[in-house]
Amino acid sequence: MIFKIDYNLNTFDAIKTRRAIKKFDKNHKMDSNEIKFLMELAILSPTSYNQQNWRFVTVTDQNIKDKISKAARNQAQPSDGSLVIILCGNTNAWQENLGRYWKNATKEREQLVINALRKKYSDNLQNRRDEVMKSCGFAAQTIMLAAKQIGLDSCPMGGFEHDELAKIINLPKDHIIVMMVVVGKALEPSGPRGGQLKLEEVVFENRFS
Amino acid sequence: MIFKIDYNLNTFDAIKTRRAIKKFDKNHKMDSNEIKFLMELAILSPTSYNQQNWRFVTVTDQNIKDKISKAARNQAQPSDGSLVIILCGNTNAWQENLGRYWKNATKEREQLVINALRKKYSDNLQNRRDEVMKSCGFAAQTIMLAAKQIGLDSCPMGGFEHDELAKIINLPKDHIIVMMVVVGKALEPSGPRGGQLKLEEVVFENRFS
Repeated sequence: MIFKIDYNLNTFDAIKTRRAIKKFDKNHKMDSNEIKFLMELAILSPTSYNQQNWRFVTVTDQNIKDKISKAARNQAQPSDGSLVIILCGNTNAWQENLGRYWKNATKEREQLVINALRKKYSDNLQNRRDEVMKSCGFAAQTIMLAAKQIGLDSCPMGGFEHDELAKIINLPKDHIIVMMVVVGKALEPSGPRGGQLKLEEVVFENRFS
Repeated sequence: MIFKIDYNLNTFDAIKTRRAIKKFDKNHKMDSNEIKFLMELAILSPTSYNQQNWRFVTVTDQNIKDKISKAARNQAQPSDGSLVIILCGNTNAWQENLGRYWKNATKEREQLVINALRKKYSDNLQNRRDEVMKSCGFAAQTIMLAAKQIGLDSCPMGGFEHDELAKIINLPKDHIIVMMVVVGKALEPSGPRGGQLKLEEVVFENRFS
């Protein structure tokens, strides 16, 4: 590995210093080892029933990044960032090769999981959609925090034309694009956090009042 | 603060060692400083347009935790864990006191954001729902990683009777329960990861093949 890991940056620092960066250094490149390293951490994030329903498209090709910027309503980050990760959900992951997610479990446990998966997702597209949103949420935060530790920054992006972006990355029909994370070298720090709610506005003890 | 922070545990270690724990030590208690500490980190996780649409119910009351276990199909984790965090989404957060999320921005920028929020969410309940799923995903992973650094473990839980749990915590009508995270002291490590997909099965370079 030629990239530099800051082992002194603990999780708290990463959480506190992660901000959505708007201006990335166009000239900064990431190598395939760095990308692999991030993605190997991403797939350690949890998924319900271990269904691993995330799919990641890692874009470094400048031509494709430029097209993505266009599909993202001309926002500059995909074009300027070193790596665009498009987090997609495979809404059929739960039923592909049922049981592969639990091959290390007992047969009895595996059958319980398979039954639970069928009950939750067979006739419920909303449950499948909810699940890919959550899974990609876990993975995105994992990627953004891990990026901090190799000295890079990130920007989560939700504003894009879904179908236009789907064409660019050749999205399979049963997949949904959940969001993008752009990773790169920040040219400018982000501004101050905008209008944060107080803890007592969002945290409730034991029940909502 | 009386709890112990392991400053040597970096983000990578936290990501790698976070596992869904099934057996928690019933006798382990968390104090209010620890809980506040975790929640202050949770609310640093990103939300689209900074709408901060997560709401967290932090349950330590044993009676309520027992009820939650029942609503979670008799799974033991909520009852045995030290803290149950119920991650809820306020689907109307985007329109409550519009502009408060951007008070540090210019007026022009603030108005742009308000217009974008209206366009995306006014007539689109699915977009609101997707947004709370993602936001709670980011926050949940933040909490689970931060817990590792104060020597605790966690379990993300999605299997519960939504309406039963909603009653227990007095969920407001326009909120959705997205998931729970139980935090506590592990009594047993989790088993080996079950049937993980290979990187090349879930990561695609530049586009899906």
